[in-house]
Amino acid sequence: MSNIIIAVDAMGGDNAPFEIVKGCVRASNENKNIKILLVGREKDVCQELDKYTYDKSKIEIINAEEVISTDEIPTSAIKNKKNSSMVVGLNLVKSGEASAFISAGNTGALLTGAVTIIKRIKGVERPALGTLMPMENGRSALLIDAGANVDAKPSFLVQFAKMGSIYMENVLGIKNPTVGLINIGAEKEKGNSLTKEAYELLEQADINFAGNIEARDLFLGKVDIMVCDAFVGNVILKFAEGFVKSIMRIIKTELLSGILSKIGALLSVGAFKKLKNHFDYSKVGGAPFIGLSGLVVKAHGNSAENDIVGAVNQCIKFIENDIVNKIQEKI
Amino acid sequence: MSNIIIAVDAMGGDNAPFEIVKGCVRASNENKNIKILLVGREKDVCQELDKYTYDKSKIEIINAEEVISTDEIPTSAIKNKKNSSMVVGLNLVKSGEASAFISAGNTGALLTGAVTIIKRIKGVERPALGTLMPMENGRSALLIDAGANVDAKPSFLVQFAKMGSIYMENVLGIKNPTVGLINIGAEKEKGNSLTKEAYELLEQADINFAGNIEARDLFLGKVDIMVCDAFVGNVILKFAEGFVKSIMRIIKTELLSGILSKIGALLSVGAFKKLKNHFDYSKVGGAPFIGLSGLVVKAHGNSAENDIVGAVNQCIKFIENDIVNKIQEKI
Repeated sequence: MSNIIIAVDAMGGDNAPFEIVKGCVRASNENKNIKILLVGREKDVCQELDKYTYDKSKIEIINAEEVISTDEIPTSAIKNKKNSSMVVGLNLVKSGEASAFISAGNTGALLTGAVTIIKRIKGVERPALGTLMPMENGRSALLIDAGANVDAKPSFLVQFAKMGSIYMENVLGIKNPTVGLINIGAEKEKGNSLTKEAYELLEQADINFAGNIEARDLFLGKVDIMVCDAFVGNVILKFAEGFVKSIMRIIKTELLSGILSKIGALLSVGAFKKLKNHFDYSKVGGAPFIGLSGLVVKAHGNSAENDIVGAVNQCIKFIENDIVNKIQEKI
Repeated sequence: MSNIIIAVDAMGGDNAPFEIVKGCVRASNENKNIKILLVGREKDVCQELDKYTYDKSKIEIINAEEVISTDEIPTSAIKNKKNSSMVVGLNLVKSGEASAFISAGNTGALLTGAVTIIKRIKGVERPALGTLMPMENGRSALLIDAGANVDAKPSFLVQFAKMGSIYMENVLGIKNPTVGLINIGAEKEKGNSLTKEAYELLEQADINFAGNIEARDLFLGKVDIMVCDAFVGNVILKFAEGFVKSIMRIIKTELLSGILSKIGALLSVGAFKKLKNHFDYSKVGGAPFIGLSGLVVKAHGNSAENDIVGAVNQCIKFIENDIVNKIQEKI
């Protein structure tokens, strides 16, 4: 089998370049048939790489002098910083020199850059960001769209459902995965104008549609794909992230407020680690931007070694399962 | 001071009529200057009332033979069941025989009935459901709109912000309360078309606008009023409700999976009770439907005694502070 070539933004995210490089080295050492192109300031990346032992034929540095920071306006950043690690990395996918690009950098810039540089799969109205969310029952469900299209049309949601189904079937191996429409009631007639129209279309689509899923059930793992517009998707993801932190802080404060409960907390520390582990998104490996004629994966802004390894592994599955062509066939 | 007359739907919600009647009796016994009109099937309500000791001049039964169930379609239920406890109760507010109506019944029917029977305050485009959410720091913030207008215009959100400010200032006594717009980024230019336009209008409005609030910060108590459309508001409320339950179940499972952590759990039981108490919405007392020329309060579907007492107390504050007239002056 030929090598899978994955470009990685060495300069993107809070922990760049050290954690990014560290993750790439581990991913390279753990996977036989891949080659990683580390895109970024050669000097900085080289300095990090020199710390590790790795197969030098499997990691290459692609120099890119500029960096797009998280607070830059996406459109102008992509337009003006042609020699940024992000734009250079996206162009590697466009030209076919890489099959995927991973970045933990500016989300808006990555999405804008991906659409303008790599182009959509023919027939796809809008590519969407998919994020695997850990469920209470230990399974994972794909939230799509988690961040790309904040003003969506009903037809977009139907395509998200189709693309999400292909992803879950091929990357996660779930046969005939179920699709739920995130809504404010279980009944068909519930919702806003977007979800009401989308429901009608989803019923007719060639997917395993399971109807509406209420927000209170989002964490139960009732369906494999949860469809929504990116405004709602982003609110859900961010709210979950902040809420877990708040709850953990409240528990900690309460546990440390009494002597008995302090002892209790010490004895229960393993259980709380498991709870934290349950919400560990690093295993998930970033969010693929689905619907493009190449693969772009958004890693969390504070990605560390583990997240990058997870993202690389996700890319390998995505490419080995030929998701882009499968979407092209189905859309 | 003259009596405040509050009508209560004795037949609404999962625990009607027993918990509703029980709550009304306690609220009546705890508050001097109120009179409660219990609306529902006279025989059923009477049977419950007979269990308690109360001042008979302060609780009156208003007979209504029909009941609107939770699965009925709101518009037709309100139109066809003229003698339901809900329609009769709303008409008591319309006629001025009561100053407020509390119901734990069908939310959609209550909102539909409220708008068609009681009418809006002149100038109010759309009344909105406000819900007090407990924050991590122990404060409460008003989420508005929590359930009425799923397809909102930017101008609606501005009115929600104004009405919410009046509510928080007068009912909760917070001077110059801050308003945050729920959005997917902190910066002004972030969001969908609704929030981007609403931001511009909120900046110019006569409120203490604090800019966007990201979903990850919703629970921190950074602002007093959190404005959004009802689709987003409902998703947030329901998601929080389901998420807390999931987390508690995961903690329980993990704690009970080892001997040490089992002992730990026993020692920490007080801390977990406090955590649960932190999310106890019954203290909040239901969600007022703000912007009507009378007061309608939606109590949670599984309201018990405490919730009803809370809702009655909320009505008293709302009426004593003359919120309806204050909104009329400001809108």
